[in-house]
Amino acid sequence: MFLGRVVGTLVSTQKEASLDGLKFLVVRRLTVDGDDTSGYVVAADAVGAGLHEVVMVATGSSARQTVYTDKRPCDAVIMAIVDTWEVDGQEKYRKK
Amino acid sequence: MFLGRVVGTLVSTQKEASLDGLKFLVVRRLTVDGDDTSGYVVAADAVGAGLHEVVMVATGSSARQTVYTDKRPCDAVIMAIVDTWEVDGQEKYRKK
Amino acid sequence: MFLGRVVGTLVSTQKEASLDGLKFLVVRRLTVDGDDTSGYVVAADAVGAGLHEVVMVATGSSARQTVYTDKRPCDAVIMAIVDTWEVDGQEKYRKK
Amino acid sequence: MFLGRVVGTLVSTQKEASLDGLKFLVVRRLTVDGDDTSGYVVAADAVGAGLHEVVMVATGSSARQTVYTDKRPCDAVIMAIVDTWEVDGQEKYRKK
Amino acid sequence: MFLGRVVGTLVSTQKEASLDGLKFLVVRRLTVDGDDTSGYVVAADAVGAGLHEVVMVATGSSARQTVYTDKRPCDAVIMAIVDTWEVDGQEKYRKK
Repeated sequence: MFLGRVVGTLVSTQKEASLDGLKFLVVRRLTVDGDDTSGYVVAADAVGAGLHEVVMVATGSSARQTVYTDKRPCDAVIMAIVDTWEVDGQEKYRKK
Repeated sequence: MFLGRVVGTLVSTQKEASLDGLKFLVVRRLTVDGDDTSGYVVAADAVGAGLHEVVMVATGSSARQTVYTDKRPCDAVIMAIVDTWEVDGQEKYRKK
Repeated sequence: MFLGRVVGTLVSTQKEASLDGLKFLVVRRLTVDGDDTSGYVVAADAVGAGLHEVVMVATGSSARQTVYTDKRPCDAVIMAIVDTWEVDGQEKYRKK
Repeated sequence: MFLGRVVGTLVSTQKEASLDGLKFLVVRRLTVDGDDTSGYVVAADAVGAGLHEVVMVATGSSARQTVYTDKRPCDAVIMAIVDTWEVDGQEKYRKK
Repeated sequence: MFLGRVVGTLVSTQKEASLDGLKFLVVRRLTVDGDDTSGYVVAADAVGAGLHEVVMVATGSSARQTVYTDKRPCDAVIMAIVDTWEVDGQEKYRKK
């Protein structure tokens, strides 16, 4: 999984039928220290993540292992909202 | 999923038999701000996307989770046409 | 899928038993404009591709969705020979 | 698999239900010589790895082939703790 | 698949139980011309490869399509030892 920050939303009305009801969020990839990168992914939301929250994203077939994404053409899912993480003994993020 | 713009078409007559009838489109990868990159993918079209439209592409085994691509040697599918997306409160794209 | 040019052949006698009979080709990755890159993949050939031909390659589990590669430890397959492709209204390649 | 060093921990209370009980660790990618890189992954721990230990990480659907990760939206797993590895006849790492 | 050279070995005693008996080798990625790169992977050996041999590596779920790796958390396998390969009419490697 990688760490990302929810930075945006996306609307699509013309889509594969099985995707109806899925919420897609734009997630910016973060470095291990919590800084922004230019990388991003559009992910389905399985946990009710909000704008600006830091989340974990699973990709590939693992992204389909939720009730929302099972058997759907979806290769990225937000599967957790992060409370805190630390690296080398330093807290890099704490949810407010 | 990543965001892309449909920039071209591709014709192939000699191909794996199960691919007959699939439409392949050339999709340029976009940055999170909607700018072109040099990256691209050739994707099967599951939603009737047109030239110049902005789309979402799913890759890997997830690309086979549509009736068009099921059990076919296809690792990228256009599974949605994007209406709008916004990042950090700014609209980055709106379909015309 | 990505676009590649068949640039070489590979011979292996000591290999996983299920791979017997598979033909492996060296495929150089092309840019969306048809130029060479330094990237490559060794792919199984499912369509009888010849040297110098431009082909489409599918990777990952999708590479196993052919009768040649089913249930084999093979993660890249040539699944189509390209006749033409065009980008932004310009023909980038035409098979001779 | 790639080699990594466990550098941190991550806490998440709001997550996909099937992930309850999984321990997530932050793993920094190492070069083949054992040096740090800026790359990282958040991986589930299947072997009781500790902070600072050097581990092997499997990704993709292979990350779900353990009792801890089976059928869960998890795309990276620590599946081994490394004792030693050597490259070109030189020992690059030995567990203390 | 990609081409690599077996450059090292790796020992792990504390690992996921299903991996017992698997031999892990450190494989350096090669360019299409046979030159070393800084990239590497740790792969399970399904063909009895030796140090310094040039091999083909399959990754992802395809790495599990051997009797050694089936249903194991292993995402890279050496599935062939290369005898020769050539690119653009030039022999790039011949096994000694």
